[in-house]
Amino acid sequence: MLQHIEEGSITSVQGISAAGIYCGIKKSRKDLALIVSEVPCNAAGTFTLNKVKAAPIVISQEIVGTPQKIKAILVNSGNANACTGEQGFIDAYESQKYCADKLGIAVNETLISSTGVIGVKMPMKTLKIGIDDIVTQLSTNGGLDAAQAILTTDLRVKSYAFRVQLSTGEVTIGGICKGSGMIMPNMATMLGFIATDASIEKKTLQKLISDAVKYTFNRITVDGDTSTNDMVVILENGLSKITIKEGTEDYKNFSIALKLMCQEMAKSIVIDGEGASKLIQINVLKAKTDEDANLVAKAIANSPLVKTAFNGEDANWGRIISAAGNSGADFDPSKVTILFDDHAVLQPNYNITLDEVKAKAVLSKKDYVLTIDLQAGESTSTWWTCDFSEDYIRINARYRT
Amino acid sequence: MLQHIEEGSITSVQGISAAGIYCGIKKSRKDLALIVSEVPCNAAGTFTLNKVKAAPIVISQEIVGTPQKIKAILVNSGNANACTGEQGFIDAYESQKYCADKLGIAVNETLISSTGVIGVKMPMKTLKIGIDDIVTQLSTNGGLDAAQAILTTDLRVKSYAFRVQLSTGEVTIGGICKGSGMIMPNMATMLGFIATDASIEKKTLQKLISDAVKYTFNRITVDGDTSTNDMVVILENGLSKITIKEGTEDYKNFSIALKLMCQEMAKSIVIDGEGASKLIQINVLKAKTDEDANLVAKAIANSPLVKTAFNGEDANWGRIISAAGNSGADFDPSKVTILFDDHAVLQPNYNITLDEVKAKAVLSKKDYVLTIDLQAGESTSTWWTCDFSEDYIRINARYRT
Repeated sequence: MLQHIEEGSITSVQGISAAGIYCGIKKSRKDLALIVSEVPCNAAGTFTLNKVKAAPIVISQEIVGTPQKIKAILVNSGNANACTGEQGFIDAYESQKYCADKLGIAVNETLISSTGVIGVKMPMKTLKIGIDDIVTQLSTNGGLDAAQAILTTDLRVKSYAFRVQLSTGEVTIGGICKGSGMIMPNMATMLGFIATDASIEKKTLQKLISDAVKYTFNRITVDGDTSTNDMVVILENGLSKITIKEGTEDYKNFSIALKLMCQEMAKSIVIDGEGASKLIQINVLKAKTDEDANLVAKAIANSPLVKTAFNGEDANWGRIISAAGNSGADFDPSKVTILFDDHAVLQPNYNITLDEVKAKAVLSKKDYVLTIDLQAGESTSTWWTCDFSEDYIRINARYRT
Repeated sequence: MLQHIEEGSITSVQGISAAGIYCGIKKSRKDLALIVSEVPCNAAGTFTLNKVKAAPIVISQEIVGTPQKIKAILVNSGNANACTGEQGFIDAYESQKYCADKLGIAVNETLISSTGVIGVKMPMKTLKIGIDDIVTQLSTNGGLDAAQAILTTDLRVKSYAFRVQLSTGEVTIGGICKGSGMIMPNMATMLGFIATDASIEKKTLQKLISDAVKYTFNRITVDGDTSTNDMVVILENGLSKITIKEGTEDYKNFSIALKLMCQEMAKSIVIDGEGASKLIQINVLKAKTDEDANLVAKAIANSPLVKTAFNGEDANWGRIISAAGNSGADFDPSKVTILFDDHAVLQPNYNITLDEVKAKAVLSKKDYVLTIDLQAGESTSTWWTCDFSEDYIRINARYRT
């Protein structure tokens, strides 16, 4: 049904080549990535809801909103081209055109994306020399290089691919993403680039990616901030000759596979959260409404007090129920059950069943599940968060300067 | 008009006595406070909006909601009596009755308040021995002892008093408060106890305190969490024989004085924020609506990325405008001006006028003003926040265990 490809990447998808190089925007690490499809692709995506949008976000979002097919995505790290005013747009358009010309494709077939420091002019000369170079480096093995080149404060490369068995054959989904700080819904909370060789109409593709992002990238948080540059884009090039139509069994299976891949990508961002040492899955059960379930999960996932307790491996259910109580959701606190993995620390009527030894066994793990059962209805929500460590402060107090 | 009383406290108000002692709820520091008025007082207050309310909050809020006059407030620190179920209520009522009996007053004349660890049963035997002791220690100089006894993770005692000149004479307002972590609106975000010898009808008193809290205690944040035990209560005992009626010049002057005192108290909580090394006042100017002004100020005041930049003394206006962009407020980012004290670092059309030397001179101070002018309307809002340091994590990762 669904097979994980070891060391898979966006270039695991047939017809996709990529490259990642160092061109000099950053001090020493790779800073320029290019993803190219040999045939035109339908594109769909989700973009930051921050009022402050970087120039490349505005440009790429506009193109994805049209029926225009896409052949390439140019991404730089180290400079966000955000809050750069008119000059930022001039620079973004120029880099888009320069790259399209070098690839011999139309300007509108080229998406652009930037991540890095806000408010600094793009070093256009450096970038152009980089584009001259990167178009010669494209390779069907270049996915991991590209994944490396889009990172900023990230410590790990985030690259995935899956094979999906459908009724008439097999398709592949591959993707790369980045994100570490400034991670938070609403929206695409990071950069993510996904490709598939399935053949999917643009409208259907948008539905698939919007749905997948809603339950994955929009349910992770490192620090509650949404960046000015977040985007997730999926390209389909149809080279598998397998068409996916809405309402079919294949659609359902592809949707599950895409969600699973986005979930792996999203979790990899949380694991790599600035200063994070733990990945905590937060399951809210039996909330009154879907909105309430989300409010409670988000409040817990974002509470600095809860996240510092995770860091201290402290079974501080008081901070958890207090965060839930602040969320705005409707529930009766005396009916709440809280579990760390399968150890219930609080049961209805404030029956405290916390066993410090059992709790410590869970809390000292790198990866566990916190469940809060509200007994207020039938809605559920799952979020992922990390602990809040002294390293988060160190990294962010000193990042820019 | 308005005179600050050096080393003033709640006992600076005539007819108010207080005491603060160690009784054994905490390991070694003072943990029990008692405030008593020699004559019955009208009481008004604001209480936590957290769904999870501690037993003493529920009991005190109910009494303050009736015309009942008040003569005493019993406060313990070290145990919040929150999430303690039915037993928590039994214990709270018992301590209230025990204290009232010892003072020879009615149970309903006694308010109770607790702060400290959540989910731990109140050590009733210890508490009762403490009450036996504290009623013998009451003194008209006991305000600072009481202020000390209500602290938890706080480092500094928070105690204030002001004399206010009115048309027919002078009245006094005095108060004590506590709060360091879990500090955040909505609502009283901490414990605050205020007394005045002015004579004020209950309805008018409630209006005065609600209004003061709205612009002071509800506009501070350390970590975005509202506790289960927050309350601010004001008592009036009328001993000055000076009556304050709504709509008069005296009302206006008393209201200004009360707000100023609450502002000093609120700022003292932020300065003493867990791990905080700086107090930053955030002024939002020219927002489209009052709600927008508040949203922007709150988003900036709560952003971990902004707060870590404050800690690093980094003029990172990109994080500030990005936080504003996430707030949900309606404005055009290209019209924004951002100042640190009077040094403009960003001006309209993304004109970056940041001078690193000038910025550093402001940011290295203990206390400065961040102004963000949105040019979207005529509304303003002022909040106070602190920086986010490695100490915050250390304190909170290790507090309970």
